[in-house]
Amino acid sequence: MRKTTGDFEIQNLGEPKIPSPLTVGYFKSDDERVLCDINIGLHKELPSKPLKSMSLEVAGPRHIIYFEPQKVKAAVVSCGGLCPGINDVIRALVMELHFRYGVRNIIGVKYGLQGLIPRYGHDFLELTPEVVKDIQDLGGSILSSSRGNQNISEMVDALERMNINLFFVIGGDGTMQAAQLITAEIARRKLKIGVIGIPKTIDNDLVLIQKSFGFDTAISEAVKTIQCAHVEAKGAPMGIGLVKLMGRQSGHIAASAALAQGDANFVLIPEEPFDLEGDKGFLRHLERRLGARNHAVIIVAEGAGQNLFSRKGTVKRDASGNIRLNDIGVFLKEKIEEHFSKKKMEINLKYIDPSYIIRSVPANASDSILCGVMAQYAVHAGMAGKTGMLVGLVNDAYVHLPFLAVAAQRKMIDPKGNIWMLVLESTGQPLSMKN
Amino acid sequence: MRKTTGDFEIQNLGEPKIPSPLTVGYFKSDDERVLCDINIGLHKELPSKPLKSMSLEVAGPRHIIYFEPQKVKAAVVSCGGLCPGINDVIRALVMELHFRYGVRNIIGVKYGLQGLIPRYGHDFLELTPEVVKDIQDLGGSILSSSRGNQNISEMVDALERMNINLFFVIGGDGTMQAAQLITAEIARRKLKIGVIGIPKTIDNDLVLIQKSFGFDTAISEAVKTIQCAHVEAKGAPMGIGLVKLMGRQSGHIAASAALAQGDANFVLIPEEPFDLEGDKGFLRHLERRLGARNHAVIIVAEGAGQNLFSRKGTVKRDASGNIRLNDIGVFLKEKIEEHFSKKKMEINLKYIDPSYIIRSVPANASDSILCGVMAQYAVHAGMAGKTGMLVGLVNDAYVHLPFLAVAAQRKMIDPKGNIWMLVLESTGQPLSMKN
Amino acid sequence: MRKTTGDFEIQNLGEPKIPSPLTVGYFKSDDERVLCDINIGLHKELPSKPLKSMSLEVAGPRHIIYFEPQKVKAAVVSCGGLCPGINDVIRALVMELHFRYGVRNIIGVKYGLQGLIPRYGHDFLELTPEVVKDIQDLGGSILSSSRGNQNISEMVDALERMNINLFFVIGGDGTMQAAQLITAEIARRKLKIGVIGIPKTIDNDLVLIQKSFGFDTAISEAVKTIQCAHVEAKGAPMGIGLVKLMGRQSGHIAASAALAQGDANFVLIPEEPFDLEGDKGFLRHLERRLGARNHAVIIVAEGAGQNLFSRKGTVKRDASGNIRLNDIGVFLKEKIEEHFSKKKMEINLKYIDPSYIIRSVPANASDSILCGVMAQYAVHAGMAGKTGMLVGLVNDAYVHLPFLAVAAQRKMIDPKGNIWMLVLESTGQPLSMKN
Amino acid sequence: MRKTTGDFEIQNLGEPKIPSPLTVGYFKSDDERVLCDINIGLHKELPSKPLKSMSLEVAGPRHIIYFEPQKVKAAVVSCGGLCPGINDVIRALVMELHFRYGVRNIIGVKYGLQGLIPRYGHDFLELTPEVVKDIQDLGGSILSSSRGNQNISEMVDALERMNINLFFVIGGDGTMQAAQLITAEIARRKLKIGVIGIPKTIDNDLVLIQKSFGFDTAISEAVKTIQCAHVEAKGAPMGIGLVKLMGRQSGHIAASAALAQGDANFVLIPEEPFDLEGDKGFLRHLERRLGARNHAVIIVAEGAGQNLFSRKGTVKRDASGNIRLNDIGVFLKEKIEEHFSKKKMEINLKYIDPSYIIRSVPANASDSILCGVMAQYAVHAGMAGKTGMLVGLVNDAYVHLPFLAVAAQRKMIDPKGNIWMLVLESTGQPLSMKN
Repeated sequence: MRKTTGDFEIQNLGEPKIPSPLTVGYFKSDDERVLCDINIGLHKELPSKPLKSMSLEVAGPRHIIYFEPQKVKAAVVSCGGLCPGINDVIRALVMELHFRYGVRNIIGVKYGLQGLIPRYGHDFLELTPEVVKDIQDLGGSILSSSRGNQNISEMVDALERMNINLFFVIGGDGTMQAAQLITAEIARRKLKIGVIGIPKTIDNDLVLIQKSFGFDTAISEAVKTIQCAHVEAKGAPMGIGLVKLMGRQSGHIAASAALAQGDANFVLIPEEPFDLEGDKGFLRHLERRLGARNHAVIIVAEGAGQNLFSRKGTVKRDASGNIRLNDIGVFLKEKIEEHFSKKKMEINLKYIDPSYIIRSVPANASDSILCGVMAQYAVHAGMAGKTGMLVGLVNDAYVHLPFLAVAAQRKMIDPKGNIWMLVLESTGQPLSMKN
Repeated sequence: MRKTTGDFEIQNLGEPKIPSPLTVGYFKSDDERVLCDINIGLHKELPSKPLKSMSLEVAGPRHIIYFEPQKVKAAVVSCGGLCPGINDVIRALVMELHFRYGVRNIIGVKYGLQGLIPRYGHDFLELTPEVVKDIQDLGGSILSSSRGNQNISEMVDALERMNINLFFVIGGDGTMQAAQLITAEIARRKLKIGVIGIPKTIDNDLVLIQKSFGFDTAISEAVKTIQCAHVEAKGAPMGIGLVKLMGRQSGHIAASAALAQGDANFVLIPEEPFDLEGDKGFLRHLERRLGARNHAVIIVAEGAGQNLFSRKGTVKRDASGNIRLNDIGVFLKEKIEEHFSKKKMEINLKYIDPSYIIRSVPANASDSILCGVMAQYAVHAGMAGKTGMLVGLVNDAYVHLPFLAVAAQRKMIDPKGNIWMLVLESTGQPLSMKN
Repeated sequence: MRKTTGDFEIQNLGEPKIPSPLTVGYFKSDDERVLCDINIGLHKELPSKPLKSMSLEVAGPRHIIYFEPQKVKAAVVSCGGLCPGINDVIRALVMELHFRYGVRNIIGVKYGLQGLIPRYGHDFLELTPEVVKDIQDLGGSILSSSRGNQNISEMVDALERMNINLFFVIGGDGTMQAAQLITAEIARRKLKIGVIGIPKTIDNDLVLIQKSFGFDTAISEAVKTIQCAHVEAKGAPMGIGLVKLMGRQSGHIAASAALAQGDANFVLIPEEPFDLEGDKGFLRHLERRLGARNHAVIIVAEGAGQNLFSRKGTVKRDASGNIRLNDIGVFLKEKIEEHFSKKKMEINLKYIDPSYIIRSVPANASDSILCGVMAQYAVHAGMAGKTGMLVGLVNDAYVHLPFLAVAAQRKMIDPKGNIWMLVLESTGQPLSMKN
Repeated sequence: MRKTTGDFEIQNLGEPKIPSPLTVGYFKSDDERVLCDINIGLHKELPSKPLKSMSLEVAGPRHIIYFEPQKVKAAVVSCGGLCPGINDVIRALVMELHFRYGVRNIIGVKYGLQGLIPRYGHDFLELTPEVVKDIQDLGGSILSSSRGNQNISEMVDALERMNINLFFVIGGDGTMQAAQLITAEIARRKLKIGVIGIPKTIDNDLVLIQKSFGFDTAISEAVKTIQCAHVEAKGAPMGIGLVKLMGRQSGHIAASAALAQGDANFVLIPEEPFDLEGDKGFLRHLERRLGARNHAVIIVAEGAGQNLFSRKGTVKRDASGNIRLNDIGVFLKEKIEEHFSKKKMEINLKYIDPSYIIRSVPANASDSILCGVMAQYAVHAGMAGKTGMLVGLVNDAYVHLPFLAVAAQRKMIDPKGNIWMLVLESTGQPLSMKN
């Protein structure tokens, strides 16, 4: 966790002077804050005064706001991979801006940040309550999305040209870094454009953030697939169900899905490297499991086992700059089949890669609430003149966080921590599969 | 929130002396604590040393435990109304006791606390991994349940007679109060029986506790019903969909379901009394809504509007001692029909009471995880010799809480707070429907 | 089954002379027919020549059609209670008219037959592919519906005034009778307006018709409720789950749901009257079941047990002219509670009435296909100049049926037939509960 | 359709002499039959007497049966790939044999036909109502399954050695051929063992049979995947969703899923070969679609496009003797990417292969009913002394069919018939994509 003073300070476009049009009384002041680190030792001294660096600004409507609602033009964009709940966020942004603040001018930027760059030729979509009223029942994003960064200056040109005052950005780690650069460029040009992020990561690996939207839905869907893998594994002699789940750098989906559904026998995650061969290696353990029970279920996160690939040539990256991972699912499938083929043991391996099915469903009820509330808080923050920040859930409270507080660092599963221990208990797999 | 020093102190049966059989290293000490109230003012002074009364003991396995596993006999009981996830809790208790601590003697008490009283003649159920391995896919409780208190002394007689060392109690507010009395009687008799609660309230209204199991599933199911009510309302001229949801003293299910599904136009909860008649009354607002849009969706929590019933005769109570509420759903249905009949307006009201359908489904993935983790922590606490406590999730951390800390007080929806304001925003209903 | 010669003859508006714009080659001629009664005795003689009265005209596109597509104005109406799949039918009608025949003028009549009567003041809805493209995912009807007959002459006035050529009517038995009267009035006025029905009955009780749309979805939903009732019944001492399902005059939903989910112990249907009291009566059997197993699940069709109500006063009817049934669900609940209360036996009865939840969900895949195909065939029939008919599935073939062939008679469950015997086998209930 | 006299005659083990223990009165005689071909021309002559070859024996309990129930030992086996509903069939077989006929000796053969061959060392599973009562909620088969034929003589040895009287075989085309050989060998040895099949093919391609179990469930699941593919296609610039569905020799699943969910733009099936390249080829049409709408959804049956693979080497077969198909899904994915890469057009293709997820779910309500009824009829047939036959649904009636009537021939989609035309209408794809 970041400890430097001022890390968690939120920028403002200027002094708020407009009375809020909201008529209800749950206004929050910038002085209300939530403690970051709430785990204490009984005998440890607390500092006599909490520093800003130890606490986070509470989200909520402000009594005095910065923008005059009727003059505001807002824009919304969704970036990166699909995730359940994007449409819920878009819907709630529009509803809140329209009905609560009276903002009448909202546009949707199509196909991610590409939509700001004229040469791609994407149209804008006017966003009204009529357009968004039923979109929460659809998966994906009505604005579509794209990967990849665009030129910062060109994007700010577009915002400037279109007289955007508030720019709502739905995206992941990389998008939040871009949003930070856009905020800086806006400041350099002395423009009054607020940039507010709604963090999106189906992998649930944003540092500090308790839960990001879409994760809960992803677990529900992943569980169904694991049940299928279990059925397949039990349905044939020496049956193996192998499921690849999302999780490029962290195994949260794999671990939580295994906890929700007690059928997995092995969970492989990026945080816990393993060997294939050798007496402590995975294949040996799989062999023992099959010998004992005649079937096995394996969950592998897409970022797991990258140490197993020989480093041939240079690292490849996708349009978003993410490292292109080697396909551990297909690799494991082949290695397992090869291993048992050598031993003349007939196995029946069924490999399932449900990623696109998981991420494209509509949000479940729990995620719908999370999306709706985060969008409402994002609007409150934007109208209050805040910028360079995102809204997030920390210690079960909604707060404001600077973009940089969450970027460039991941919330990993601690291989010595509770969650991983619970997974080991649940699967019965060994503490380590390294020789 | 309770502030008296010592409120949150956890009792122990004696000094732990047995090394834990657990081989993994995420042991917690009783000194690790979580702050209770994490909302601070920026300029407010913090006390220089956190008092026990301001923090809660962290849940988790202890390095040195109190009971010798191979000698332990444990009992499990589920009490009160059904709630999604009870079987998940039972399953995880048995799995954790059996596989992690090596406890081989676990019995299930059938039909709630009745099961401890011989004259009811209920058998016990031996609980083994084989018995519980697939029960998470079933709704309800494999132990069944019952309402109503039983004689404390007779119950402790039963525990003593059967040589129970660890008594796991799954139940709500009333059950936790009974568990406290059982703990006290055990102490009076100087017995070494640990009593550990796993709090169950589908209404999610336990004070301090962030989320109780089953609530998330209940919202998911409630949302489906609201969608149906919306379809019915739109399907006929002047259609009204009226849905009664659970919530005897608090409107959490009604409010969250309304937030998850933007179709409700009125949400009526116990915390916010309303009038039927008069210009500010509910019926007048309903009339306006129908005039404007030709249909309406109403959600009413079962404990709402109790002020509307004439106080005839004495209060009735059910077997659990809960006050028998007047049926606000049927009452509203009749009042609405009467109102529009008087006005010679034809309406089409469809009344839906989905309570039994909601509470009897299996837990969803999110609740399954919550149940599994809470049960594991309950076992750790019990084996460590703790008693008179329950496990709970507070500020997103798992902690130990004395029974009395959560009993006899409710977590209500604050009619001036965030959640209710979000509901008002989402429904468009007026701030108050009192004249 | 009707045997009179000519019963199954289909009317035509005139001789078709326009070549079909369809370019694909699966045209059907009016001479292709499907046998009605396909159950034969091995030694029985067949008539040497099939009469029209023994066979049905096959549905499908005709090579030469009656209407010039570009001049056609079509109208669509949905009548009576909601049923899963209405929107699928509307969508497929519009898509087929628009894309296959090039019909550009399609209007939706709102709120059932009311929509044709000016004094109700309902607007029409223009139906285009853009309007209907996603409606199959919504429950209910985008046109809404209403009960009740309207003046035949006024309705034909409206069709005439609006220059409608093709009138597609989605509705049940009563609606089909109205459609027949409309057809007759149109003929009397010598108008060239085709009236084509798509039969809707969630109860699946249209005579001759193998399966009506929505029934399959209704069973799926009913099964979920029965599972809940089973969980509730097992969840408390002497638990009884009582579920009321649709089925005014026939028990198809109750019977099929019981067959799909083996948890029901008693199924009560209109076709099989029963006594409550007496040694052979239902209550005595219920008592025995509870004595033996401690819980019971009861399914009752809404039209069952009407013989149990004392005939006080005159028969009441709803707006559609359907007899208002006494509420057998609530009646049974009270009688059961009274019975066991007299015997001083504590029971826990949970009563569930899921009707509105069942009928308002979107169609499942199987019903979606059925709806889509029936609508396409309805369009083919309409464009070919046929009138006074509906499309239906008979002996697994799609055919044309005159309105009168299906009206005024019900497909009942034969209490001596296969389905009921399968139900008796599945539930274990006695052959008769009449004294 | 087979026309030879006697084709549909059912074999009997001997003359039935035992009165049925069934007490209910819906017995069927062997003389009650159902016509096979019910499509007639209006002016066509019918033969004056229906031949056996034109009609099928009706399924149902017989008044006089062949086996003495208390002496019967029955065996059940499930073979080939998993399919929703196998457990429903097993459950209903056991329930019917046990509760209706009083058969007390039922064994489950594990891992398909392997289970009859001692050297595989598989145990038998005793099947009782207690064992099977809840299995309908599980996917897969509690008996597991395997592919591949076994030595006929060894299998009959096993049946003889274990004193099996009734052998129920759940399996597909290949299994039914094996069952026929087993029946012949039993006859040769003059044994009195009845062999009764319950046909299983998720592809729904058994000739004559209207619908096989599991197909309806498969469509429901396939539809969910197509919705996801649609969301993914719309979620990125030039998005393509490519879904591979089951269907080795027939495209029923692909076609029905496309009809149930109107989102597919291209459906590729084995019955309709297509070219990739050239002006009429698939890639050109895909390009046009993307140009017009910016996204596309493609469904490909696994057996489609086999003409596109160069015939290198000999044909490979799996353990069941099925030809190993080339993977058209991966092949198409690569060809599409290659095509647009050459044209310097950036596309976003998401490939989904949901086969294992589709086939391993529990049966839906509709399939549950079908499975239950077919199993009951299979028991009736077996107890009546019939052999060498399977039960099936033909023209919406349950009948007996000799194994050979359905084996070795497939029910294909007619590329000139109704279903395919409906698919073309629904997708808008061209009549042919052959140059």
